[in-house]
Amino acid sequence: MKALVFGADGFEDLELFYPYHRLKEEGITTHVASMKKGPITGKHGYEITADIAFKDVNSADYDIIVISGGKGPEKMRLDKDALEIVKNFFKKNKPVASICHGPQVLVSADVIKGRKATCWIGIRDDIIAAGAQYEDSEVVVDGNLVSSRNPGDLHAFGREMIKLLK
Amino acid sequence: MKALVFGADGFEDLELFYPYHRLKEEGITTHVASMKKGPITGKHGYEITADIAFKDVNSADYDIIVISGGKGPEKMRLDKDALEIVKNFFKKNKPVASICHGPQVLVSADVIKGRKATCWIGIRDDIIAAGAQYEDSEVVVDGNLVSSRNPGDLHAFGREMIKLLK
Repeated sequence: MKALVFGADGFEDLELFYPYHRLKEEGITTHVASMKKGPITGKHGYEITADIAFKDVNSADYDIIVISGGKGPEKMRLDKDALEIVKNFFKKNKPVASICHGPQVLVSADVIKGRKATCWIGIRDDIIAAGAQYEDSEVVVDGNLVSSRNPGDLHAFGREMIKLLK
Repeated sequence: MKALVFGADGFEDLELFYPYHRLKEEGITTHVASMKKGPITGKHGYEITADIAFKDVNSADYDIIVISGGKGPEKMRLDKDALEIVKNFFKKNKPVASICHGPQVLVSADVIKGRKATCWIGIRDDIIAAGAQYEDSEVVVDGNLVSSRNPGDLHAFGREMIKLLK
């Protein structure tokens, strides 16, 4: 089993590292994807190396995407290859986990319409405008999609993310 | 089941938050203990509220201790009540998980002699001098004691920490 964690400079550190280590804890090969290969730096100064650029990802190689939050999603959503990966996952009904600002990418990939989801409160109105059914809960699960609001929800986000893989 | 996570100002943010959320993910009530109740701040600026002061902890109430790393352990090790909690856990053979600089507390509590353990490389010689059998591994398990070296080991640390509770 293989997982792909989306990150970009300005990522919310805990929201990238919690799912990253959690997936590895399950014995899952976990790669970080970004606009290009190489180091990316979180809001709080943690660094991690992106293993692969979005343009080089073969979606069929991976079983789950995790979209971390913070300032990363406003960059990822401008990358057409990142959006293609997300669209492919939704088309195939494969697990996607998205936290905080992560749903900005789901809005741009036009996959959130009619789906129950949550997000950082500051982008709540954007996901509603894009057709999502917003819920103010620590975690919302709707089919292949798991979403959470903020780093304080990581325990619930992790639990439901792992459940999608079992 | 209840868990106690030791923290103090200057804690290594990921090393506190990963086990904290991981324990909560298992449905375990998780409290943060420090020299006093109230907010503490990590090296990378994350804040969390200590639920209880070491002096007010009844060891019998908890099933596992996690000692986070960073700059916290040099403060915790000066708190005699923190050391008493640790001694009590070792006496009863209850789970203790310690990462990075966490074993500084184990040295001061005089519980590491003859035990296999790992730690942040910068304090390797201190745990050896205190009688530990140091191993350079992502995680070392010796009876009730789980130890890891640094934030990059959190996936293995989490896995073995949770196993001790099953």
